[in-house]
Amino acid sequence: MDFLETAMNRQSCRSFDENRAVEPEKLERVLQAGRLAPSACNGQPYHITVCTGETAHQVAVATQGPGMNKFAVQAPVVIVISEENYNKTAAVGSKIKGNDYRSIDIGILTAYLTSEANSQGLESCILGWFDDEKVRKICGLTHPVRLVIVLGYAPDGYLLRPKKRKELDELVTRI
Amino acid sequence: MDFLETAMNRQSCRSFDENRAVEPEKLERVLQAGRLAPSACNGQPYHITVCTGETAHQVAVATQGPGMNKFAVQAPVVIVISEENYNKTAAVGSKIKGNDYRSIDIGILTAYLTSEANSQGLESCILGWFDDEKVRKICGLTHPVRLVIVLGYAPDGYLLRPKKRKELDELVTRI
Repeated sequence: MDFLETAMNRQSCRSFDENRAVEPEKLERVLQAGRLAPSACNGQPYHITVCTGETAHQVAVATQGPGMNKFAVQAPVVIVISEENYNKTAAVGSKIKGNDYRSIDIGILTAYLTSEANSQGLESCILGWFDDEKVRKICGLTHPVRLVIVLGYAPDGYLLRPKKRKELDELVTRI
Repeated sequence: MDFLETAMNRQSCRSFDENRAVEPEKLERVLQAGRLAPSACNGQPYHITVCTGETAHQVAVATQGPGMNKFAVQAPVVIVISEENYNKTAAVGSKIKGNDYRSIDIGILTAYLTSEANSQGLESCILGWFDDEKVRKICGLTHPVRLVIVLGYAPDGYLLRPKKRKELDELVTRI
């Protein structure tokens, strides 16, 4: 078991097989992995809303903009990540240090959810573009929505693209 | 290969074996996993500074506060994550949507680094408490430091603790 394989195989999927549902037991494992994500002072300052059926469709539509996220409506599962309040320790630390730990925690959670999705043979795309007000209304949320993750199976023949990243020499300094 | 095992086995390690170095090839795999992390518009708005030896010690000292992070000086490798500028597309998206994608990206990167560390049998702790100015000076950085990750081997007999997390019913709503 090596995470590097997950890192190599996971990619943003922008086309989903609309006729292939996500098995409930696979979705459960994805959520269980998310539940175990570490967070600042173990605050877990987020909530996960799992949308399927008509609700998934509505949220997917609310992620669309001019030329953006058209594929989202094909995904059978749409996961909405919203922000929750800090716990007290994290709130104090954040104030003193001027660091937004909540957003970092939401990033870690997102990596955990999408990594386990990859382990289960599912494809995902992390969407940062959405109509916050509309998504909140559909999901009955009072806190801000931070990310939407679409989940499902890619159509047959959808290929793993080569990854374009900064070279290690540019990304990393050793001292 | 299942990420859920990584999620279950990885924990914040607060004691390191000072006599056991991190093998260079393991560190390389950790960095390679980090390099593959996804980010908003593929902006990769971060830089990684890997500190060893005296530099690691200096940064570790700069993470200490009253009763905090005393163990950090035991870690043979200290990784500093600093923020870089957005690329243009992500900057425009962030402004329009009022969303801090950079911090989320740094969270995803952190999960990738620490997950691969776990795959390599290494232990890690993610530190959000540090003296930004001091760490920047030690590392010669001009951008803000967002997180410090300490890396190494736990001493013999260091146990996996049960994880305390919100129950799935509290964390997740299904609609």
